[in-house]
Amino acid sequence: MIRKILIANRGEIAVRIIRTCKEMGIRTVAVYSTADRDALHVQLAHESVCIGGPRPADSYLNMNAILQAACSTGCDAIHPGFGFLSENPQFAALTQQCNLIFIGPSPDVIEKLGNKAHARQMMQEAGLPVIPGSKQIVQSVEEARSLAETITYPLIIKAANGGGGRGMRIVRSEEELEHAYHSARSEAKACFGDEDVYMEKYIEHPKHIEVQVLCDEYGNCLHLYERDCSFQRRNQKMIEEAPCHVLRDDVRERMAADAVRACQHVGYTSAGTIEFLMAADGSYYFMEMNTRIQVEHPITEQICGIDIVKQQIRIADHQRLQLRQEDIQPKGYALECRINAEDIHREFAPSPGKVTFLNLPCGRGVRVETAVYNGYTIPPYYDSMIAKIITFAPTRLECIKKMRIALEELIIDGVETNVEFHYLVLHQRAFIEGTYDTGYAQQFIEELKENGEFI
Amino acid sequence: MIRKILIANRGEIAVRIIRTCKEMGIRTVAVYSTADRDALHVQLAHESVCIGGPRPADSYLNMNAILQAACSTGCDAIHPGFGFLSENPQFAALTQQCNLIFIGPSPDVIEKLGNKAHARQMMQEAGLPVIPGSKQIVQSVEEARSLAETITYPLIIKAANGGGGRGMRIVRSEEELEHAYHSARSEAKACFGDEDVYMEKYIEHPKHIEVQVLCDEYGNCLHLYERDCSFQRRNQKMIEEAPCHVLRDDVRERMAADAVRACQHVGYTSAGTIEFLMAADGSYYFMEMNTRIQVEHPITEQICGIDIVKQQIRIADHQRLQLRQEDIQPKGYALECRINAEDIHREFAPSPGKVTFLNLPCGRGVRVETAVYNGYTIPPYYDSMIAKIITFAPTRLECIKKMRIALEELIIDGVETNVEFHYLVLHQRAFIEGTYDTGYAQQFIEELKENGEFI
Repeated sequence: MIRKILIANRGEIAVRIIRTCKEMGIRTVAVYSTADRDALHVQLAHESVCIGGPRPADSYLNMNAILQAACSTGCDAIHPGFGFLSENPQFAALTQQCNLIFIGPSPDVIEKLGNKAHARQMMQEAGLPVIPGSKQIVQSVEEARSLAETITYPLIIKAANGGGGRGMRIVRSEEELEHAYHSARSEAKACFGDEDVYMEKYIEHPKHIEVQVLCDEYGNCLHLYERDCSFQRRNQKMIEEAPCHVLRDDVRERMAADAVRACQHVGYTSAGTIEFLMAADGSYYFMEMNTRIQVEHPITEQICGIDIVKQQIRIADHQRLQLRQEDIQPKGYALECRINAEDIHREFAPSPGKVTFLNLPCGRGVRVETAVYNGYTIPPYYDSMIAKIITFAPTRLECIKKMRIALEELIIDGVETNVEFHYLVLHQRAFIEGTYDTGYAQQFIEELKENGEFI
Repeated sequence: MIRKILIANRGEIAVRIIRTCKEMGIRTVAVYSTADRDALHVQLAHESVCIGGPRPADSYLNMNAILQAACSTGCDAIHPGFGFLSENPQFAALTQQCNLIFIGPSPDVIEKLGNKAHARQMMQEAGLPVIPGSKQIVQSVEEARSLAETITYPLIIKAANGGGGRGMRIVRSEEELEHAYHSARSEAKACFGDEDVYMEKYIEHPKHIEVQVLCDEYGNCLHLYERDCSFQRRNQKMIEEAPCHVLRDDVRERMAADAVRACQHVGYTSAGTIEFLMAADGSYYFMEMNTRIQVEHPITEQICGIDIVKQQIRIADHQRLQLRQEDIQPKGYALECRINAEDIHREFAPSPGKVTFLNLPCGRGVRVETAVYNGYTIPPYYDSMIAKIITFAPTRLECIKKMRIALEELIIDGVETNVEFHYLVLHQRAFIEGTYDTGYAQQFIEELKENGEFI
């Protein structure tokens, strides 16, 4: 029986884990850097241990200090949260070597899934669709033409050593292929001093859809349906929703079944997430698997009525899942806005500092996850996310309206935040319709800039 | 179509109504006294009108000022909230005379149900059980004996002009009746100068159970199941829960059916509550009907998944209930603690003043209703309730645990509150078992006093 857990994290996720531990009658140990002496997770935990200086490397990434804190306070287990050491196989292995339970999958599974090529290969073995591509340098137009038959159009030619869109050509038909191949190579040569290119399927207007799973040590694996996390700026999610409003039922079913099969194939345990890229026609491809609790897990909790952290702890405690797949009947919609202390007028640069006044929204259908309080000073050393506002309602439109009202009520003085940006997004047609893709956020930011209205 | 509503109230209920109006796309007008210039409901409404001085009679009970505000701002309707003018038939009638919709039942129904004797009579006509009793002066032992046969034992003899427990005798069998009758009369004579007594059924260890109803103008009447509001100090509810943990299913069914029948009998419209007193054997008696939204409505919203204020507004707008009784399937449990600014060490005396630091609980399964913010000054003129903490979970025990954790996180500095008292109650066996009756809170307070531990 797990009786005492060290939470190797900070901020809202540490607070959220502490709450569930308390409900389960489990004692909690917080760890903190010298910059986090006054942090809420330190106040709420039963005990706390200072593990080093403000820099992550000195504290929240300091494996020895964390393991020492866990041992000296008599913990049975460590919950890594997300970020920091949560997907570090070495830390998971060291935790086990200290005779402590690591709340997550086995070090071996973390390692395998953390390696992109390895993960892709395992998922292919499990029968999951992966993005078709050469993955090797394409040496000639003839080879390109032959590969294109397998990959099918549209496809994309990319500079092997490139980035930032340069040396990239989207090819929509065979007629365009030869010219695109040569021009991509010359641009690659000009930009990166290297003409090597490779090819892969080009997914137009993709959506980022992910499936939440829960697997125990006895081969039971459940999915908790999907989240649509397509609203991203520079690959950072900003708004998430569950379920995905525009997902066809047949695709939902296949995707969920694929996720479960993938977990069973790799011998996955704990909570996890399989991320897919989905094309407009409903075809989808495995991207990666996250072997930890995710920032956006609350929206799934709201529609499924399940405490995912509680399930993680139970699974780590060698218990069987008491749920069957048919018990999980998602109900209603949930939406999450990540509130960051950042200056939207200065390219979303972090804006740490003292919160001089705070008013959090509350009421029916509103859930707030935060570790910020009145007078709290946001340190400059960590992620700029300071709160998650989650709304839930029977319909998606009600959810959006609730979120607008919640953001109207939310006041964070003293630092810059992205609240106003979220508020604007919630009034955009593409967002309201739910059809936005992963490129939409950046496109919307560009529009605002061009209009000189906002950013 | 209702497009603009004046909220004739203040505090958390005004804020809660504003939120639902915003979700419905309805504009809101707040009214406020000069003591409430900085109140949250004033900040959150689309418009606001000052209606008078701090004393309730000068502002929140000032019918003319409120009606004038509604007319001059172009409102279609008035929502009275609870307390103040919410059950004043004259105000409801005046509202209608101003061509405004009163969000509540008709003035006639409010008046009839507001008169205890009249309400009792109507409920008897509708076939509801009322507390059996003489209701007239009992003139002789013979009359008492004959009445006792109808009332049945245990019964209680009460001084007609008494109070405070004096001139009262509980009679458990016929043998005790004659002696009790005479001694009650002499004590009444000694205490109140009047020997008149009457008799009624004595309900031992009663529970206060109430049924929430929703009725439209087309004869549709639904019940939203019951709340257990037995935790009361001096007839003031402090903690409420839904559903009632110890209610037998057959009693639940009969009680709900009685509530619906009562509403149909009196031609009730809007949301309302029928309060019952329930004996340990499951027999129950009509007490009174509240013709307004109640403080404790959120716990019903949580288990039924229905926005009661929204339904009130829709009904007032002459719309049909879109719900059928079978659509209402309560799920899980919900608990509410009323947080009052009061000094539990000084007989729960009000403790107004400035809130110098506020930290509200949040997270999964926690709902907060409040109008208090950091730095807010609680005025001395109004009710001392400053927040409602609501928790909800699949099981009652999880609900209680969530509430304990929420209260641990709740910090209100600057004024005295009853938070610590709630926290103690949540650890008492009688509360955890759910068997507590309406006398329990006072009994618990006495115990604490006797032990000199706390109060």
